Amino acid sequence: MTDLPDPTVGEIGEHRILRQIFAALDGSSQAIVGPGDDAAVLAAPGGRVVITTDTLVHGPDFRLAWSSPLDLGWKSAAVNLADIAAMGARPVALFVALAMPADTRLSFVGALASGLRQACDALAPGCAVEGGDLTISDTLTIAVTAVGVLDGVEPVLRSGASPGDVVALAGHAGRAAAGLELLFSRFRDADGEAVAVARDTLDAAETAALDAQLRPEPPIALGARAAVAGATAMMDVSDGLALDARRLAAASGVTLALSAGALGPEPVAALEGGEDHALLATFPTLAAVPDGFRLLGVVQSPGPDALLVDGEAYTGPGGWDPYRDWDRHAG
Amino acid sequence: MTDLPDPTVGEIGEHRILRQIFAALDGSSQAIVGPGDDAAVLAAPGGRVVITTDTLVHGPDFRLAWSSPLDLGWKSAAVNLADIAAMGARPVALFVALAMPADTRLSFVGALASGLRQACDALAPGCAVEGGDLTISDTLTIAVTAVGVLDGVEPVLRSGASPGDVVALAGHAGRAAAGLELLFSRFRDADGEAVAVARDTLDAAETAALDAQLRPEPPIALGARAAVAGATAMMDVSDGLALDARRLAAASGVTLALSAGALGPEPVAALEGGEDHALLATFPTLAAVPDGFRLLGVVQSPGPDALLVDGEAYTGPGGWDPYRDWDRHAG
Repeated sequence: MTDLPDPTVGEIGEHRILRQIFAALDGSSQAIVGPGDDAAVLAAPGGRVVITTDTLVHGPDFRLAWSSPLDLGWKSAAVNLADIAAMGARPVALFVALAMPADTRLSFVGALASGLRQACDALAPGCAVEGGDLTISDTLTIAVTAVGVLDGVEPVLRSGASPGDVVALAGHAGRAAAGLELLFSRFRDADGEAVAVARDTLDAAETAALDAQLRPEPPIALGARAAVAGATAMMDVSDGLALDARRLAAASGVTLALSAGALGPEPVAALEGGEDHALLATFPTLAAVPDGFRLLGVVQSPGPDALLVDGEAYTGPGGWDPYRDWDRHAG
Repeated sequence: MTDLPDPTVGEIGEHRILRQIFAALDGSSQAIVGPGDDAAVLAAPGGRVVITTDTLVHGPDFRLAWSSPLDLGWKSAAVNLADIAAMGARPVALFVALAMPADTRLSFVGALASGLRQACDALAPGCAVEGGDLTISDTLTIAVTAVGVLDGVEPVLRSGASPGDVVALAGHAGRAAAGLELLFSRFRDADGEAVAVARDTLDAAETAALDAQLRPEPPIALGARAAVAGATAMMDVSDGLALDARRLAAASGVTLALSAGALGPEPVAALEGGEDHALLATFPTLAAVPDGFRLLGVVQSPGPDALLVDGEAYTGPGGWDPYRDWDRHAG
């Protein structure tokens, strides 16, 4: 124990780190049994729960020069909330396994916890961090597991689209990738190392792109709304619309036929940019599409190509694969 | 894609890694919706679920010279299953966030997945890996989230012990720490680096200690059995019996009075050794203690000391704190 105003986690005990985290979470638990016992106990009305896990790793997933700890907490919550929403569920809890270097400042941990809390409050009110784990590691790693409930609807799978359905999207397509491109092109030094973002040099569109990359706001509430409206298939668009649309098409055994005009002024960027965490969904009729979704196209009988854009097979690159695409030297 | 017989994960795509993992898991999913969609859907009979997360990190938590990938998969499952059992619940699902260096061999990933599967089959039949996440990282990290159901019993918290209850333990105390001591004392080279374990140099007790450390077998089924038998409090003993007994005593507002004679031939080792993942529980009467638990002592009204051994305050060190106790240079 130490009286340093902002010690590193290696200088203090787990107890004091947890105290900082609980202060940031500030009694937000909604669980039957929240943090502090061997495990949490959650209500699962309807007798089913929806669970997913997704991890942010220092290096391939973020740079500390670009992302604040608050950004990291926010994004690690948001990407998991989006997977719950994509099943038509309402997120109720996050569990956070945080592995961090011994020289991590206590204030960093507190800000990260605040980011988790703020993302829950903004994107999925009623959802809170209900448990977690702290370990020491050479590599800062934030593994989040999210839990949702279905509120009486059936889960919406990727596999339910049928010919004749309409295809719709809620959220951005291409914006987060534009933010990443901005970081790589404008905020690295001569050696290619990340440097702090000078926000006052950005115009409104650039700021929006940067925010979409660093602190995304997926349309979480629209997931459950789509399920209630009768969505036949749905998925989180995390690896780019083209790749994820092909995945939904393959799971459903159909072809998705999109209109380039519906993809905005830069359809290729919209098709290939990852990390937007938009919701791609199919609905039985146009009338069923809820507010917040916009029409992209239609579902067709399966053809030789899983994805058509303006009637032509779309063969552009399929999105981000961390095992193929990340080069630690190039960054 | 490559035809190498055992490529690294950096040489191949996520798709092929997942194929190897699914082969090892071999259709063990028990979920309503298992791996492959945005999230899994699990049945939660009784309308409640129990959830916990715990992480193994290369360095502080394991050495690759000592632990096989099968050991790592097994242990990362076992430590989480123990936290579910400690609530009186029956484990039903694991979610695994696996972050690994690009030079990790595909066969390593397959063996790790086999270890997860084998631990579930052996310790918690019916429990399976129902989802996960793969990322690249400089530090091999296995973050597991476990989910359990309560089968009609109330969760058993740390806080329910009352004066007059009896204290009992299921599982080992001190054995896993003896295994760790064996590794540090006998299987390091002159520079202090871990070297492979020569199992043929070990006697039966040493082999048992090593197995308790590398591939623990917590008494998972006894957690639910204790709940049915009316356990008033329970917890997973992961940080040493002395520290965890003090935690249970503090949560319940009582003193635990243990008998040194009940702790075996080496009571100090039993009190201070961590990582056994035994179940420490209290029961209203001796008659209620189920088979598989052994009596350690009694619960008393709160006194100045939370833990007594043979009537004296026990002030020995409190167990393992990764932030205080791990020195990456000493190992």
